[in-house]
Amino acid sequence: VDEFDLIKTYFVPLARDFPGSLNLTDDAAILDVPPGRELVVTTDAITEGIHFTGQEDAALIARKLLRVNLSDLAAMGATPVAYFLALMLPKFTNAAWIKNFAEGLQEDQRQFGIHLAGGDTTSTKGTLSFSITAIGSVAKGQALKRSTAKDGDDIYVSGVLGDAALGLACIEKKITHPAQVFLEDRYYIPQPRIRLGERLHSIATAAMDVSDGILQDMGHICEASGLGATLECDHLPLSHAAAGLQNIPDFWHYVATGGDDYELLFTAPVSQAMDIQRLAAELKLPLNNIGKMHSGHQVQLLDKSGKPMQFVKKGFRHFG
Amino acid sequence: VDEFDLIKTYFVPLARDFPGSLNLTDDAAILDVPPGRELVVTTDAITEGIHFTGQEDAALIARKLLRVNLSDLAAMGATPVAYFLALMLPKFTNAAWIKNFAEGLQEDQRQFGIHLAGGDTTSTKGTLSFSITAIGSVAKGQALKRSTAKDGDDIYVSGVLGDAALGLACIEKKITHPAQVFLEDRYYIPQPRIRLGERLHSIATAAMDVSDGILQDMGHICEASGLGATLECDHLPLSHAAAGLQNIPDFWHYVATGGDDYELLFTAPVSQAMDIQRLAAELKLPLNNIGKMHSGHQVQLLDKSGKPMQFVKKGFRHFG
Repeated sequence: VDEFDLIKTYFVPLARDFPGSLNLTDDAAILDVPPGRELVVTTDAITEGIHFTGQEDAALIARKLLRVNLSDLAAMGATPVAYFLALMLPKFTNAAWIKNFAEGLQEDQRQFGIHLAGGDTTSTKGTLSFSITAIGSVAKGQALKRSTAKDGDDIYVSGVLGDAALGLACIEKKITHPAQVFLEDRYYIPQPRIRLGERLHSIATAAMDVSDGILQDMGHICEASGLGATLECDHLPLSHAAAGLQNIPDFWHYVATGGDDYELLFTAPVSQAMDIQRLAAELKLPLNNIGKMHSGHQVQLLDKSGKPMQFVKKGFRHFG
Repeated sequence: VDEFDLIKTYFVPLARDFPGSLNLTDDAAILDVPPGRELVVTTDAITEGIHFTGQEDAALIARKLLRVNLSDLAAMGATPVAYFLALMLPKFTNAAWIKNFAEGLQEDQRQFGIHLAGGDTTSTKGTLSFSITAIGSVAKGQALKRSTAKDGDDIYVSGVLGDAALGLACIEKKITHPAQVFLEDRYYIPQPRIRLGERLHSIATAAMDVSDGILQDMGHICEASGLGATLECDHLPLSHAAAGLQNIPDFWHYVATGGDDYELLFTAPVSQAMDIQRLAAELKLPLNNIGKMHSGHQVQLLDKSGKPMQFVKKGFRHFG
């Protein structure tokens, strides 16, 4: 594969609908920002053997990478605009694999209204690695942040928790489940909550996406906001599939610290409770009140009897 | 090394002067774009064993990565704003190496007025890899492109050519030279021509940076503009050190196809010749007329006798 042919064949079509991409033939892309808007920019990288095994369908790897970035845009309340892709490919990567990877991107571009606008392709002597920088736009001053939660706020999470971590455990053959395929899909194809994020600016005081397990991620909001939080295990939302696994050892470990949920975690004043339920109904997306912000700096998850639960590890760390 | 500690210790200081970075504690950065400006965005990735051996000083690797991206901004005529860094680190990467890497970035941030605004750190089972997405700003509609060269334009290049390729040949012990250290430095530390790029919008018809050898890169302007180009070997600018090597075999191969020059290649109407020489004097940077755009689609380099020179390979390709 020649890098220029590769770009022309598989990646230029992904950039065609975004004029600022200059069809990937220039040194950089041009991004015009409408008056009254500002940009939100995020970068996520994934590498073989850490984020994926390399045995997966290439389209799934591509879609997850794009969706993980879209989830960060959602967490800031942004509308997707464009993304930049760095591909680091071992020399023996075959064209069919790359074609499949590009098709995965194409599918999700359509679904989320984002376009490839630039990037870089390089060979590597190591493993397959990818990095995406995604850019979204938001009304000036309206981006959601982690640092602005208030004492007394309710804590909400979208969707359900734990499916992806349980799905990964199925993939790794640590557990089995009749709804295994459902759980595995939840691991491979997270749902970035773009539409929810776009609506939260007048509702939420702080927000982030849950990527490393809700306990650890809740800790990030607490640290940034100078507050503590108490979550109730009874209120953590579960899918039917996950609920069916409640008696496996470490069940709450998967749900609270497992990672890869890509749901939105946000805080809101108690007065917003009705609006939040109205929004949930409109978006057909559960928005559950799972706890409360308070002074202090600790994050606690209480079990059904109201006692703090203990976990060896609060969430995923790369160099733990 | 823990990824959060790593980010806090070495990378948060690089983001401190850019408020939109939110101190790297959020899901994404916020970028405000002044009225009348638009953004230019570029991505470049480098990996161990391809772009660097891994034996180099980490600060040099960092600086080259940042400068390569800055050179793309320069090629579009943009002023640097911020960059996003994806780090893929083998688990055994030590903290001293990362500290040194961050110090290299710090030094060049100061020199070029750019700031770290976000990124991602992940472990890898492969080799060290890095990707930077750099963002610059330009007056609306003023970005320089490759596709807008005109028939009859003069072709210019900044600085001198071939030093970096000859420097790499020294590093690889293929050649020796009394000024070896000078040439090697030219390979490790390219000079992105930001100030030149910012001034070219009213002068140049098309521009790009020379990263893969001037013959191949000239081909990109020709292809994008639907034109051909003739360059004269006699006019290609050389440093004293490079000129001293003119009788080694393959000398013109190094100069014309070697890559890593990171000079600006641009086209301009003949009427701009005086203004270009004035600008060269003001910037204390040679701007040499090296040839002419014409109809057709071929790029030719003529030798001293006016005959087209032949090269096996026109420039660097990753999957050649």
